[in-house]
Amino acid sequence: MDPRAIGVFDSGVGGLTVLKALRDRLPWESLLYLGDTARLPYGTKSAEAVSAYALQAARALVARDIKILVVADNTSSAQALGRLRAAFPDLPMVGVVEPGSAAAGHASARGRIIVIASESTVAAGAYPNAVRRARAEARVTQIACPLFVALVEEGLVDGPIAEQVVRHYLAANFLDAGEEERGDCLLLGCTHFPALSPLLRRMLGERVAIVDSASTTARAVEDVLESRGLAAPPGAPGVIRYLATDSPERFARVAPIFVPWTVTARDVEMITLE
Amino acid sequence: MDPRAIGVFDSGVGGLTVLKALRDRLPWESLLYLGDTARLPYGTKSAEAVSAYALQAARALVARDIKILVVADNTSSAQALGRLRAAFPDLPMVGVVEPGSAAAGHASARGRIIVIASESTVAAGAYPNAVRRARAEARVTQIACPLFVALVEEGLVDGPIAEQVVRHYLAANFLDAGEEERGDCLLLGCTHFPALSPLLRRMLGERVAIVDSASTTARAVEDVLESRGLAAPPGAPGVIRYLATDSPERFARVAPIFVPWTVTARDVEMITLE
Repeated sequence: MDPRAIGVFDSGVGGLTVLKALRDRLPWESLLYLGDTARLPYGTKSAEAVSAYALQAARALVARDIKILVVADNTSSAQALGRLRAAFPDLPMVGVVEPGSAAAGHASARGRIIVIASESTVAAGAYPNAVRRARAEARVTQIACPLFVALVEEGLVDGPIAEQVVRHYLAANFLDAGEEERGDCLLLGCTHFPALSPLLRRMLGERVAIVDSASTTARAVEDVLESRGLAAPPGAPGVIRYLATDSPERFARVAPIFVPWTVTARDVEMITLE
Repeated sequence: MDPRAIGVFDSGVGGLTVLKALRDRLPWESLLYLGDTARLPYGTKSAEAVSAYALQAARALVARDIKILVVADNTSSAQALGRLRAAFPDLPMVGVVEPGSAAAGHASARGRIIVIASESTVAAGAYPNAVRRARAEARVTQIACPLFVALVEEGLVDGPIAEQVVRHYLAANFLDAGEEERGDCLLLGCTHFPALSPLLRRMLGERVAIVDSASTTARAVEDVLESRGLAAPPGAPGVIRYLATDSPERFARVAPIFVPWTVTARDVEMITLE
């Protein structure tokens, strides 16, 4: 039993989908979320910059006495997890790439897995590698879908524009694809994308497995806490705190897109990373 | 006559539309472009952060001996130009907000001016204020259009998705508006938006004036250089150099969206701002 908080790090607010998944699965755990909002998005930045930023963020969370680090940012999970583990060898860590990839490997019927993600996550190639570790014969296709992020941030997660954009990115591999070529599993490789799940489910039909890395990551965190005896004692719901590197007001304004509870600017502490 | 370069500062690559407008209008001028790509976008950051970043960028350009500073970034133009002028009182400076606003004030027939911009530019309110300085009785409506930025960066500047998004943002003030309420001038208050001009022209019709801040800013720069005797001597085309705070490769890959000439990663020098 360990009452310390789970640290969750993201480049911005999208990682709140992971926070929500953790809250749903592990209500007794206290959660400390750090969004590096002053420097988002990481997706367009070099691997060197991303590693440096992730190390700074991890240091800030470790200084606040976390028991496990969840790297909710896809770019950091893909490019910096090795460096983070080397820098903090005693701290359990879970990224979002491995759990989602393993789940997709299991969920896919015929091994035709389509990964949708940001441009840089696609370029890094971490998802295909991780999926193949879980299922060696999988055929993995990646599609960079930057417009999905903008749609979610605008709250346009349904309606004709969202449908057209889904069609734009996914027609070739799902809607217009022949039976043989069609994907049978869609892996959401970006923290923003769970907001589009209902639309994707409706458009792609019931036969496509949709795997999101937020809930699979929460399950992986639960496994680690249990196996290491680090779970919080049951009782009152855990405390949720927020750190951000830029305006608490904007953080609070965007949060409702990703979590169903209220976040006010006073709940968010602004810090500097360096 | 002054052969020194014109310094152009932007938070990323969108300011290349201003660079192109300067090149078109002032071919003998050497141009030094600085994109703070490691920290883009500024639009989601606090006014304090934006001012600090803009001062660092200006310092880097001044250290490279520019004769005038063009602040191509809308957020910095709206929020930091006063601070920049105070910090460098002897350096001529032109932002993108004033020239576009003045031109819109003149171009509008009935004074119904619609400003489209990023969320933060809209929140800052600099365009309505500047338009009213040029034309006191103007009725100015602002619309935040973040999806336009994502569309341009995806190269989706035409076709059904772009049309639907234009309709989403502009139907109420143009396409579906009554004669009385309809805008008669559209001011593009974001450096990315000139890429959408042809589509906007086609959808809004010939009777709407479309004013882009890139070309109006280039005209303002020409005025300043002429009135101060700072123009470059005519002769060979000026040299164009690029500085960026993150990956030259990505800078070079995205540049063709905004300029018609070739930019290779070797043309881009990576620097650190602090």
